[in-house]
Amino acid sequence: MSIRLGELAVRFGCELRGDPDTEVDRVATLSQAGAGAIAFLANSAYRRYLSSTNASAVLVTPDDAGECAAAAVVCANPYLVYAKVAAELHPSRPLSPGIHPGASVQDPESVPASCEIGPGAYVASGVRLGEGVSVGANVTVSTGAVVGDHSVLMPGVTVLEQVRIGARCILHSGVVVGSDGFGNARDDAGQWHKVPQIGGVVIGDDVEIGANTTIDRGAIGDTQIADGVRLDNLIQVGHNCVIGAHTAIAAMSGLSGSTIIGARCRIGGSVGFAGHIEIADDVVITGGSAVTHSIKKAGLYGGPAASADDARRWRRNAVRYTQLDEMAKRLRRLEKQLESAGSDD
Amino acid sequence: MSIRLGELAVRFGCELRGDPDTEVDRVATLSQAGAGAIAFLANSAYRRYLSSTNASAVLVTPDDAGECAAAAVVCANPYLVYAKVAAELHPSRPLSPGIHPGASVQDPESVPASCEIGPGAYVASGVRLGEGVSVGANVTVSTGAVVGDHSVLMPGVTVLEQVRIGARCILHSGVVVGSDGFGNARDDAGQWHKVPQIGGVVIGDDVEIGANTTIDRGAIGDTQIADGVRLDNLIQVGHNCVIGAHTAIAAMSGLSGSTIIGARCRIGGSVGFAGHIEIADDVVITGGSAVTHSIKKAGLYGGPAASADDARRWRRNAVRYTQLDEMAKRLRRLEKQLESAGSDD
Amino acid sequence: MSIRLGELAVRFGCELRGDPDTEVDRVATLSQAGAGAIAFLANSAYRRYLSSTNASAVLVTPDDAGECAAAAVVCANPYLVYAKVAAELHPSRPLSPGIHPGASVQDPESVPASCEIGPGAYVASGVRLGEGVSVGANVTVSTGAVVGDHSVLMPGVTVLEQVRIGARCILHSGVVVGSDGFGNARDDAGQWHKVPQIGGVVIGDDVEIGANTTIDRGAIGDTQIADGVRLDNLIQVGHNCVIGAHTAIAAMSGLSGSTIIGARCRIGGSVGFAGHIEIADDVVITGGSAVTHSIKKAGLYGGPAASADDARRWRRNAVRYTQLDEMAKRLRRLEKQLESAGSDD
Repeated sequence: MSIRLGELAVRFGCELRGDPDTEVDRVATLSQAGAGAIAFLANSAYRRYLSSTNASAVLVTPDDAGECAAAAVVCANPYLVYAKVAAELHPSRPLSPGIHPGASVQDPESVPASCEIGPGAYVASGVRLGEGVSVGANVTVSTGAVVGDHSVLMPGVTVLEQVRIGARCILHSGVVVGSDGFGNARDDAGQWHKVPQIGGVVIGDDVEIGANTTIDRGAIGDTQIADGVRLDNLIQVGHNCVIGAHTAIAAMSGLSGSTIIGARCRIGGSVGFAGHIEIADDVVITGGSAVTHSIKKAGLYGGPAASADDARRWRRNAVRYTQLDEMAKRLRRLEKQLESAGSDD
Repeated sequence: MSIRLGELAVRFGCELRGDPDTEVDRVATLSQAGAGAIAFLANSAYRRYLSSTNASAVLVTPDDAGECAAAAVVCANPYLVYAKVAAELHPSRPLSPGIHPGASVQDPESVPASCEIGPGAYVASGVRLGEGVSVGANVTVSTGAVVGDHSVLMPGVTVLEQVRIGARCILHSGVVVGSDGFGNARDDAGQWHKVPQIGGVVIGDDVEIGANTTIDRGAIGDTQIADGVRLDNLIQVGHNCVIGAHTAIAAMSGLSGSTIIGARCRIGGSVGFAGHIEIADDVVITGGSAVTHSIKKAGLYGGPAASADDARRWRRNAVRYTQLDEMAKRLRRLEKQLESAGSDD
Repeated sequence: MSIRLGELAVRFGCELRGDPDTEVDRVATLSQAGAGAIAFLANSAYRRYLSSTNASAVLVTPDDAGECAAAAVVCANPYLVYAKVAAELHPSRPLSPGIHPGASVQDPESVPASCEIGPGAYVASGVRLGEGVSVGANVTVSTGAVVGDHSVLMPGVTVLEQVRIGARCILHSGVVVGSDGFGNARDDAGQWHKVPQIGGVVIGDDVEIGANTTIDRGAIGDTQIADGVRLDNLIQVGHNCVIGAHTAIAAMSGLSGSTIIGARCRIGGSVGFAGHIEIADDVVITGGSAVTHSIKKAGLYGGPAASADDARRWRRNAVRYTQLDEMAKRLRRLEKQLESAGSDD
């Protein structure tokens, strides 16, 4: 698979500064690219490689195009065009449709011929798979689950009963969808009684879920993940959470039960959300934050135990934190000064 | 499955304010319930729905009963009664006893006829399963493991060698019990030598363990989880930890090796415990806390890096944290004031 | 299996204070050891058991040898010698070479006869396994993966395409290696476009990886884990991270993409690393820290949101944190005092 730069520029709406007949057949980083590779510059930390790269072409913004040692493919959002070019030059492995003899499929007639069911996979009765679904090795799809067209369940995924997954989703290995939420009622003796978790999970289209992430079913009603959501690895989504369309959450973040997150939010890694709170659309939260109250307005937020503290203020406080011991000593010094001043009277 | 309110009130020791012949056949939330559903009020945030609910009945405390638009089923602990009613109206799927042809069972004669062994499951030799055990699809139960009566291993669980699990436990998908603890000895060159982990894991009765949680075997001696413990998803329990009866721990918390936690503790999400410490019975720890020292007395604790700081004091400090930059400026102002006062002399 | 103390002392370079003909056949803790057991003292918290232990022998430093109630096996690093003695007295279960009939192996001729392939395991075509590799039950090894001699993939591990694992590695249950990194390009409408993750993962020799840990493949180029690295449970390693030789990381820590960590580092649990930073060799980071900037010098570091703050200073600040509310009140008192002093003028 290769593509001429002239064609590439036309197809992706870029301006080409270079030979349209040059061909590229793979992507590479600026520093490691050789002839035939196309690179990109999206992070200014790597600009220093632009003038010396051996790439055949580089995706750049107009501002950076001048410095480029290779053919410049100029566009407003090089990373976005890179994503599309990389998908073209490095297509996913095509499916091998069919049911592997090592799979256990309760109702093989219900599986479209376009689906691939891997060895060790289990597809229970009453499951509905769309066209071109990939069920990887050692995946479990439980009774009543629905998986939309062209979705991919990577090896080792577990989809539990009554979970509905949209089209073109990717669930990475070790993902669990539809585990029981953490519902326990306490009696007078301090013992726990399980609260049945009778809701489901509804996942929209074009959702990607990272390895070993867990998504609990609703206690009553469904846990909901809207179209285009991106969840990284080792994330916990509690029962009855709602995550709005195109929101992205980085690894190791955790949503307590009934957290509602708006659309197009960007949440850093290791962010913890208290339960029963609501985050507006277009909220950005820095990694490591603890969000204990609702956030009602779009914007940048962050900080440990700092609910909805705005991020600039939080950063100033964080700097002061590293001066705390010194501040305490200065405070003590002032107190002594005033005491002795007082004793002069 | 449905139940008359009159019967329900008698069976669960409630006072009924409404028609005893009304039947309910499902549970629902106050705001979404329709005819035939029974709801509950346990969180004051939802009280506003009480006067307008379309539920046929609501479980409420005596204080809330007056406002209820539906038949009021009055009791001291509505959430607890709800748990029991929901379990009755929404029973778990009954087992389909037998060994699926897609399972690998080393010693089929040792498996009670009342057990269900799913496709892709592996039950090694020397495993002892109680009556009515459910071994889900793609579960692994290794040599010498013991699983008590009516326990459920959901799809994708891994139970390793010499792990003993009590009766009526539920292990959710992706749980790993009996992985090696993190034991490494360092030589003079800074290289690690594995310390064999030769202990086991002992889990009591009525324990529930959330998806993708990991419980390491002891280094020497056993990791122990007592009766009635509830662990949420993505929790780490290090080697030789001991968790007392009826303690509940929310998602993403982590126990370093040899942490000992008492009975009936309630631990929030994302709490980290340093190793070799001991937490008393009936301790409550707020989410996101770091517990670096032992806690010797029942009570409410919390705060990052605040070992055993009591939670009210911690909250006041947390508020001050958001004012740190301002405090630093005020301190500087005072210092200047005193300097100039001093230079007047 | 048992060993005479005389032989043990010679083989491990220890001085023996006791009868060389005494035999030990197992390891135990100081407090629980009985006749025939060898214990060790490496943590001063357990020194109180030294004079009353019922062990037949104890591994101790010269300083502690005098107090020992049992035969003293004296050495500079008792924990290291313990690791070796325990490995000798409690050897791992020997492999049962062969392919279990419940496994799915695409190309059985390519599997060395010395390998053990468990039930439910899937080994794809184009996989290269070394001698004596153990592929546990329900493990998936995808196309093009390489696993070196005597490495162990515990039950439920997932090794994805083009992942290369060295010799004598141990991957614990639930580990995922080679999941896609979190690469998403955002368009003007705020929608995400997947950035293909076309790199691999390269893992050196003698690496141990804890249960349910996830290691993403590189976006371009490889994620790299060098020889002798130790990763605990539930760790996230983002795309293109590099972890230097003999570095150990405790549970629940997370490395954002392109984090580079040097050799022989020791990282506590729940430490978060921002992406695109570089940590020098021989850095030690306390548990719960957030590392947001590069660390250029060996040493001890720690603290939440305290990038590269040295750990002693951080601890002092942490103590002050617990006094913040009181400090704020003292500051207010000083301000009032100066105001009233001012109004006297």
